[in-house]
Amino acid sequence: MRIAYQGEPGAYSEAAALRSHPDAEVVPCPAFEDVFDVVERGQSTLGVLPIENSIGGSIHRNYELLLAHELRIVGEIELPVVHCLAALPGTTIEQITQVYSHPQALAQCDRFLRRLKGVEVVATYDTAGSARLIQERQMTTTAAVASERAAEIYGLSVLQSKIQDFEDNITRFLIVGRGSPADDATQPLDANKTTIVFSLPNEPGALFKALSVFALRGIDLTKLESRPIPGKPWEYLFYADLAVGGHEFTCGRALTHLAEFARSLRTLGSYRAFVRGDKP
Amino acid sequence: MRIAYQGEPGAYSEAAALRSHPDAEVVPCPAFEDVFDVVERGQSTLGVLPIENSIGGSIHRNYELLLAHELRIVGEIELPVVHCLAALPGTTIEQITQVYSHPQALAQCDRFLRRLKGVEVVATYDTAGSARLIQERQMTTTAAVASERAAEIYGLSVLQSKIQDFEDNITRFLIVGRGSPADDATQPLDANKTTIVFSLPNEPGALFKALSVFALRGIDLTKLESRPIPGKPWEYLFYADLAVGGHEFTCGRALTHLAEFARSLRTLGSYRAFVRGDKP
Repeated sequence: MRIAYQGEPGAYSEAAALRSHPDAEVVPCPAFEDVFDVVERGQSTLGVLPIENSIGGSIHRNYELLLAHELRIVGEIELPVVHCLAALPGTTIEQITQVYSHPQALAQCDRFLRRLKGVEVVATYDTAGSARLIQERQMTTTAAVASERAAEIYGLSVLQSKIQDFEDNITRFLIVGRGSPADDATQPLDANKTTIVFSLPNEPGALFKALSVFALRGIDLTKLESRPIPGKPWEYLFYADLAVGGHEFTCGRALTHLAEFARSLRTLGSYRAFVRGDKP
Repeated sequence: MRIAYQGEPGAYSEAAALRSHPDAEVVPCPAFEDVFDVVERGQSTLGVLPIENSIGGSIHRNYELLLAHELRIVGEIELPVVHCLAALPGTTIEQITQVYSHPQALAQCDRFLRRLKGVEVVATYDTAGSARLIQERQMTTTAAVASERAAEIYGLSVLQSKIQDFEDNITRFLIVGRGSPADDATQPLDANKTTIVFSLPNEPGALFKALSVFALRGIDLTKLESRPIPGKPWEYLFYADLAVGGHEFTCGRALTHLAEFARSLRTLGSYRAFVRGDKP
């Protein structure tokens, strides 16, 4: 059992992969696209992808990739994001002149970083990769914003832990696998969430009508995200998370109802979502 | 009459400012925050801010700043985004080894740039600023993705025009000014659009109920954007554009109705929106 993730050892995506499948072999990939590719080619059983952070919002790129590929969502896991400031052993916080990390991680520690006077903040591709770079290049006045696990892997000392501005900083990851969500044989019977994407005719009240197919059946919408349709200004694709399994009667009826007037409708997956505290 | 914008002369925001107020004096500002500040302090009458691009989607930062500040939206203008590849006079397209521009502009020309083999793409803060840099530093093998106006201002030659992937690439700009949208005396009687932001109790069907206050009164929603509420995982703020002026009876009633159960509700402005082709 292999599970692919974007990033390097110590990345939050790796932690999410291991939390959802503790015995799996993790496969690091340079880019999100590569996660899709290795799963599609069968080089990895599953892939794990960040889809939303409770502070920064949706990771739109992964929504786009879900559309462009034919994988299906088979699970979801939430992971608290706890950043630390890490540097080479011996470096003190006063010696730091530069802080490296992914732009989202830097943004999540904005208040903390502002208090470090005279420090230059440098955006990089990766939290864990920043920690690795500092070790490889023996950068004695640079710190990384990364997980404590990344600091440990790359032999850095933690100068300060829990430096994120909001304690409740959580990233939601989707787990993707092969197979079509429309295939009944692969519908998990314990699914409690279904993700769909649809577009609507550009007419007044269309979105209200779309939401009514769920509301009138008592199906809760836990997320609704609108994204532009390239080449069609001010028309939108809607990504929706429904708090219902695809195998349930009301879900099937609601989707059939939506298909009556939606311009397009696709189910991206029906799966068991674990919330914080749940044991996956 | 002064109108502030983010960027440097030749920026698309400057073009939007001049298109909406051709006789105004334009005030360049380093960051979006500065546009809000100079208008709040009265150093500029108005400010112009990109809020949505038809390919890239919403500019979330400006939604956040609209919330954090007390300005109101007084107008809206759409501007087609037409990028060109510009370099120092004498440089040929074959000599280019680097292309500078803002990440969104680079993304919008992705297909074109991929065809330029062996060229490094470098993200910068600004389209017009990239053109200026090439001129200032006399970079003979670097090109910028910018507007033709930026190329002209900074003395660059256009190597290729209309290089964006989608012809229908439009940015929607908001015009902001001082005063409260709740103040009846400042409500324009020709307004045809109202922008609101609201949050809802975290219960099933809440969004459906919110949309119903508009749908049941025949008010069209032209945009709905959800954004996370920091510190409250998986709760959202909704930004909505209503195709109705705030002075109209149905709009007032709908907003009063929404306020009955919304956790928060604020009108960001009621204004006249111009669509493509309209003469502002």
